[in-house]
Amino acid sequence: MLVYWLDIIGTAVFAISGVLLAGKLRMDPFGVLVLGVVTAVGGGTIRDMALDNGPVFWVKDPTDLVVAMVTCLLTILLIRQPRRLPKWILPVLDAVGLAVFVGIGVNKAFLAGTSPLIAICMGVLTGVGGGIIRDVLAREIPMILRTEIYATACIIGGIVHATAFYTFRVPLEQASMIGMTVTLVIRLAAIRWHLKLPTFALEDKS
Amino acid sequence: MLVYWLDIIGTAVFAISGVLLAGKLRMDPFGVLVLGVVTAVGGGTIRDMALDNGPVFWVKDPTDLVVAMVTCLLTILLIRQPRRLPKWILPVLDAVGLAVFVGIGVNKAFLAGTSPLIAICMGVLTGVGGGIIRDVLAREIPMILRTEIYATACIIGGIVHATAFYTFRVPLEQASMIGMTVTLVIRLAAIRWHLKLPTFALEDKS
Amino acid sequence: MLVYWLDIIGTAVFAISGVLLAGKLRMDPFGVLVLGVVTAVGGGTIRDMALDNGPVFWVKDPTDLVVAMVTCLLTILLIRQPRRLPKWILPVLDAVGLAVFVGIGVNKAFLAGTSPLIAICMGVLTGVGGGIIRDVLAREIPMILRTEIYATACIIGGIVHATAFYTFRVPLEQASMIGMTVTLVIRLAAIRWHLKLPTFALEDKS
Repeated sequence: MLVYWLDIIGTAVFAISGVLLAGKLRMDPFGVLVLGVVTAVGGGTIRDMALDNGPVFWVKDPTDLVVAMVTCLLTILLIRQPRRLPKWILPVLDAVGLAVFVGIGVNKAFLAGTSPLIAICMGVLTGVGGGIIRDVLAREIPMILRTEIYATACIIGGIVHATAFYTFRVPLEQASMIGMTVTLVIRLAAIRWHLKLPTFALEDKS
Repeated sequence: MLVYWLDIIGTAVFAISGVLLAGKLRMDPFGVLVLGVVTAVGGGTIRDMALDNGPVFWVKDPTDLVVAMVTCLLTILLIRQPRRLPKWILPVLDAVGLAVFVGIGVNKAFLAGTSPLIAICMGVLTGVGGGIIRDVLAREIPMILRTEIYATACIIGGIVHATAFYTFRVPLEQASMIGMTVTLVIRLAAIRWHLKLPTFALEDKS
Repeated sequence: MLVYWLDIIGTAVFAISGVLLAGKLRMDPFGVLVLGVVTAVGGGTIRDMALDNGPVFWVKDPTDLVVAMVTCLLTILLIRQPRRLPKWILPVLDAVGLAVFVGIGVNKAFLAGTSPLIAICMGVLTGVGGGIIRDVLAREIPMILRTEIYATACIIGGIVHATAFYTFRVPLEQASMIGMTVTLVIRLAAIRWHLKLPTFALEDKS
């Protein structure tokens, strides 16, 4: 099943994004492992706690957990010696993981019988959760707070996904693919051309 | 039922507080939406995860979620053009949300059959949870860590609420009103007159 | 039962570590109380939410919660006047709590019927969770992100614990003691001699 493999890929790229961020912080390998794994499984963990659907997914089936661990260890081993990474690597990996995880979150919520609104929220939560934890722990400004289109991409992708499935009766797997593609394309375009929505800014009378 | 309407109000003011904080960070509208919604429903979400009372409240009944979303969107639209906001707005909105949510947390815990101690803890958790997440994401110093009476207001309000209900057999709805009023009055007084408890400070032998 | 008393001790030392960190931030006593309690029960709370084993442990049995509260209040009262604390106090207390909580997390996971891999993860989560929340709230660099062996100690202790129980059929209580000792000794040695693993560092092409 295609979604199964996309889940593996999303987990792996988020794990790599955690490892790369950790690489800037001069952590030891096991700290790196923890940060990578938390990034990879964090969003889905919060989703499953909120849905209260039994133990979280990696307790029920450790596949994703093992994928995250192995990916972290391989990444640490393979790019062991300091080398210069182009600056776009981290956002692009994050974009792929984001697109996949929004789709998977929407799917899991629909399979748990929720309404489209809750499904979209679960998608956004799954997509942005891991990256937020990663950035908060690493004391980076969370990507979702930056001006480039980020939450917007997740929300639009989630809405397209839920609408395709719920309104147009597209089968769930195809609806996922459409939604993921929309999220990914918007996010990559935002990275490539520095697309921004007009920001919402207030001044303080301080 | 009065508590129902207070819940709506608490959700709305916390959502506005998230939007106003986001306004200082020059985020895009959908990032603002996410920050506002997380602030509004974050505390109750942690409470429901801890009580393990089925899916969290906004999955069971999306009213609060919709209220938070609509409030965020209206706030973004209505105060769209940059303008100077007086400095006390954010703390005062936070105080109203805090008072209401402490009361609602205590209520929900009593309805789930917990002891008064746990009910007070759930009240504090519900009250401070959303604001802590908001401030951590926005990289502000969490309000609860500042010196002005904050945690103190929640704890006293929660104790009054639980004592009124549990010891003096005041009906739960009236007990809620008394507790909420106590939290709100203490917090507003602390903001107005910069009331502080003596701080607990240690020095480092560094 | 020895593990029961160790749990009390772990809770108390983590609570003290939260209070001592709060002491650097000039918070008021109730803010200190909240930070101390969250540090003491935070890791186990996340573990129980992930295992979805009914309400979290302190809702089921408030002993640890009361221990954390009383410890915080006593610590605040007894070291009320500013005095110079040696710099190693916080890391050493953190190390004791860490070792105990990793062991308790592994135990609880085994008692809930999980595989050794999940048990080790639950141990690490229980051990590092409270301290991470403490450090994020207090805007310190989380200990787990620093270079001194930290995550490493938890992971090795957890692996020894799980292997002793699962592979060598050591009774769970003895296995816990062995694992906790390993975590503690590694962590204390790391603090004493500033042991570090080679760090994993990448450069940015910025």
